[in-house]
Amino acid sequence: MADPADVTDPADREGPAEPVDLVDHHCHGVARGPLDEARFLSYLTESDAPAAAGTTFFDSQLGFAVRRWCPPLLGLPAHCPPGDYLARRAELGDEEVTRRLLRSTGITDYVVDTGLADGLTTPAELAAAGGGRAHEIVRLETVAERVAEKAGSSREFLDGLQEAVHAAARTAAGFKSVAAYRHGLGLDPAPPGPGELGAAADRLLAVRDEGRRLDDPVLLRHLLWTAAATGLPLQIHTGFGDPDLRLHHSDPALLTGFIKAVRPTGCSLVLLHAYPYHRSAAYLAHVFPHVYADVGLTLSYTGARAAAVLAEVLELAPFGKVMFSTDAYGLPELYAVGSLLFTRALGQLTKTWVGEGAWAAADAPRIAALIGSGNARRVYGLAP
Amino acid sequence: MADPADVTDPADREGPAEPVDLVDHHCHGVARGPLDEARFLSYLTESDAPAAAGTTFFDSQLGFAVRRWCPPLLGLPAHCPPGDYLARRAELGDEEVTRRLLRSTGITDYVVDTGLADGLTTPAELAAAGGGRAHEIVRLETVAERVAEKAGSSREFLDGLQEAVHAAARTAAGFKSVAAYRHGLGLDPAPPGPGELGAAADRLLAVRDEGRRLDDPVLLRHLLWTAAATGLPLQIHTGFGDPDLRLHHSDPALLTGFIKAVRPTGCSLVLLHAYPYHRSAAYLAHVFPHVYADVGLTLSYTGARAAAVLAEVLELAPFGKVMFSTDAYGLPELYAVGSLLFTRALGQLTKTWVGEGAWAAADAPRIAALIGSGNARRVYGLAP
Amino acid sequence: MADPADVTDPADREGPAEPVDLVDHHCHGVARGPLDEARFLSYLTESDAPAAAGTTFFDSQLGFAVRRWCPPLLGLPAHCPPGDYLARRAELGDEEVTRRLLRSTGITDYVVDTGLADGLTTPAELAAAGGGRAHEIVRLETVAERVAEKAGSSREFLDGLQEAVHAAARTAAGFKSVAAYRHGLGLDPAPPGPGELGAAADRLLAVRDEGRRLDDPVLLRHLLWTAAATGLPLQIHTGFGDPDLRLHHSDPALLTGFIKAVRPTGCSLVLLHAYPYHRSAAYLAHVFPHVYADVGLTLSYTGARAAAVLAEVLELAPFGKVMFSTDAYGLPELYAVGSLLFTRALGQLTKTWVGEGAWAAADAPRIAALIGSGNARRVYGLAP
Repeated sequence: MADPADVTDPADREGPAEPVDLVDHHCHGVARGPLDEARFLSYLTESDAPAAAGTTFFDSQLGFAVRRWCPPLLGLPAHCPPGDYLARRAELGDEEVTRRLLRSTGITDYVVDTGLADGLTTPAELAAAGGGRAHEIVRLETVAERVAEKAGSSREFLDGLQEAVHAAARTAAGFKSVAAYRHGLGLDPAPPGPGELGAAADRLLAVRDEGRRLDDPVLLRHLLWTAAATGLPLQIHTGFGDPDLRLHHSDPALLTGFIKAVRPTGCSLVLLHAYPYHRSAAYLAHVFPHVYADVGLTLSYTGARAAAVLAEVLELAPFGKVMFSTDAYGLPELYAVGSLLFTRALGQLTKTWVGEGAWAAADAPRIAALIGSGNARRVYGLAP
Repeated sequence: MADPADVTDPADREGPAEPVDLVDHHCHGVARGPLDEARFLSYLTESDAPAAAGTTFFDSQLGFAVRRWCPPLLGLPAHCPPGDYLARRAELGDEEVTRRLLRSTGITDYVVDTGLADGLTTPAELAAAGGGRAHEIVRLETVAERVAEKAGSSREFLDGLQEAVHAAARTAAGFKSVAAYRHGLGLDPAPPGPGELGAAADRLLAVRDEGRRLDDPVLLRHLLWTAAATGLPLQIHTGFGDPDLRLHHSDPALLTGFIKAVRPTGCSLVLLHAYPYHRSAAYLAHVFPHVYADVGLTLSYTGARAAAVLAEVLELAPFGKVMFSTDAYGLPELYAVGSLLFTRALGQLTKTWVGEGAWAAADAPRIAALIGSGNARRVYGLAP
Repeated sequence: MADPADVTDPADREGPAEPVDLVDHHCHGVARGPLDEARFLSYLTESDAPAAAGTTFFDSQLGFAVRRWCPPLLGLPAHCPPGDYLARRAELGDEEVTRRLLRSTGITDYVVDTGLADGLTTPAELAAAGGGRAHEIVRLETVAERVAEKAGSSREFLDGLQEAVHAAARTAAGFKSVAAYRHGLGLDPAPPGPGELGAAADRLLAVRDEGRRLDDPVLLRHLLWTAAATGLPLQIHTGFGDPDLRLHHSDPALLTGFIKAVRPTGCSLVLLHAYPYHRSAAYLAHVFPHVYADVGLTLSYTGARAAAVLAEVLELAPFGKVMFSTDAYGLPELYAVGSLLFTRALGQLTKTWVGEGAWAAADAPRIAALIGSGNARRVYGLAP
């Protein structure tokens, strides 16, 4: 099998980087069953439509990053034609491909969002394939929609929701909200009162047979406050995502009121992704003791630009407040690419800053360990 | 005549870059008649006022870029005093200056916005001077204002507008909206109904003798939808521009609702400029198949920073969705500078990424050809 | 005493940079009396809470910058342990530390915001310690709150305010507004009429015993217009700051209406900080002749990234419109770090741009002098 260093990257010729333990504090399962080209490509984009004529989704920074880093992990030269890569993938079989790619990452803990799980491996399967430990992040809107399906009344819905969130809290590592998709982050920061909550629950149950998603801002707020009350960390989608999103409604700065209001509960808030508002997320992580900034998704999608984007996060964010993740979804390739891009981007930045004298040499590995795993272990309470 | 490479830039010493065919998908005519210093300088800024005391508009990244790239094209050393340059310009005459500067660019197709044309060359004149082909972009608000001048009733205005847009569509390469200037991009995304449209037309005709511009959000929306119905590409001003603009109302993310609503029509939307929201424009180009991101104006104005800004666009934007333009206006210098900055910025970025191993060497010229001309040829239907 | 050049930074080995005169057009006093570790650390963050577990506020770009630049100024090696530094600080005494750190900066003029002055040195004391000249910036909200304390009626309040602002204008170098903190910058741009002003004054006096801050948008607007009428420059807080802020309400683009409305008065507006909206501030400085962009606070807090951030400001901002400051507050270290980071960042950028041929060598020191001091001297009317 070719080594990933078998390329012309001068950095590679210096030999492999020190292996670093990583906690992937926000990721998803990988797709079950054989992946044809169309399905493979659909996981390389946040779009829901074909690529521009004459191009494929490989023609993007993420696509180039996959072509650069993954073929060597399957014994092919970097940047080999996509067709060769997909053929090799089929030859090895999904299980072996997943195993090889996951085990290349240094990830010891997979903290898996199970909110969108159809056709994906479970946290336990994922961790087994990768040789790591599994933890679960429970998506609040998914819990609420499940409870609503069976509730006979709004009272039953609200009680059942309370119970379900607290039951989940007994085993989960944390919760996640996708309020950014469902309504936008410009929510009233206060917990809803009983009256508006009951009315919102009534509205939800009245339309539940229409297959509509939970998008009522009152209920979305209620979910945030219910999760906060458990004391577990709460991940919040901010910044870019699929076309369902209105980007400017996902600016994490819109959460400022909620961040202040929820502060006394002691709940940690983890602002996921955030790009292109990652500097605002870093600011919030700077001024609020319970706020953390994630770099997942962003580094994978920006590929050759990962170091540049990570550097922007590291302007205002205190180093004890930034967390690695891959946000990998569907493809084990996204674990490999997310980990490599993060590790190399951070390595490149700290090497530059130490070289310039701006950072002390001894601080670089200490900070890398905080961002790669230490901060997440502390916040999610994971054993080393 | 001195070669532009006669400078101390180490990159130049490696010899001239390969000439690349460019389609300038968004530009304007050059000023007719002799340009005195004041008028020349007025084209180097988006401001409507004099420069700070003790400085001129040459004291900006754009001004320095003009001083660096244009004198050698007229036989003077790079960075010669502005007075020498303007004297040389006068000596050669506008026609010869325009010819030399345009022919330095590699532009084969000029796609010219004729909405602000007073005192500027026509597309045909421009293309003749540059040795390229001319295409026209029709500015919607200008069409509507012309129709309104002669309409006897709101019915006549609306019918005349419909006819004028469809007549223009028979020869134009596309349309352009400056709704960002006139109202802001936070428009209701839906096409206006007949009632509100009639009322808006009545209001327009009632005040048309007051010399007010068309700034009614109902009519601006109507123009967008009327253009979309022709099937031609629709350019939309987003991001920075002259002081008439409220910058935060030109964030392309504000268009998300319209982008989704118009998607079924098959109309391509080209988000012009976008800076400092160019990462948001790139995101929209990523998730929506009919959205494209332009880099014109932005690279010229940011000069020495052009590669840094272009790199940000190329984080999320798929490579089949980004388009070169100069947005040159008034000065042929802006064609020269816009083309050189783009070509060199993209060359520098791809050289770096190939050097790091992040991109395959063979992909660099392919992607450069897409961004420089291929994407625009495909979207505007231009012959190679 | 060790020289700051005694580190491994290759740039340092080229010898010290040319000393450059600086005008610090926005700064604060330093803390009186001995600083224990907790108080020292509280000045290294905009947060109001402890650092993340296992870290201190030294674990940030600002903290690393202090550790890199300040120990050598007190005779210790760069990046020495924080405990050693604080011990050395105690040994030398505050007065000597302040003297050494301030005199390392090249600052000749301290333009001091006296709005938050409890426990801080006066402008005169600061300038004496630093060997420079003192100037005062008067914070409008502080003036208004003082007048309100003693006013017997709203008429008396409004008359007293008018008088106090005009009295201050006789000696002050300018005014400052923190409307971004008190309400946000999305204010009605017009000066308030007498009716709404009287009502707002009534409301203020009715609650003044409750210790509430002045946060009425009518009064905040009135303060801006009252200051503008004096003809002195008006500093406006924009962008990041302490957790009291809602970041997205401090986007300087929100000021566009006020900027246009106030333009005929001839008042200069200086947009402070602006990060992460510094490109928007630079745009406003580009298109409006009376608008200036500051780089203080931002460069200190982003440390190793100061050159990258400064480069973004210098994309659209004309070079006659950008101003150095430290926004130092409490710690003399913030003067040293702010000055060094600015000087080196600008030096690094101009060296790169001259090296690439993008800038003429002769322009670099001229532009550096404008940004470092010339622009501020012109705007605030300071003698050279």
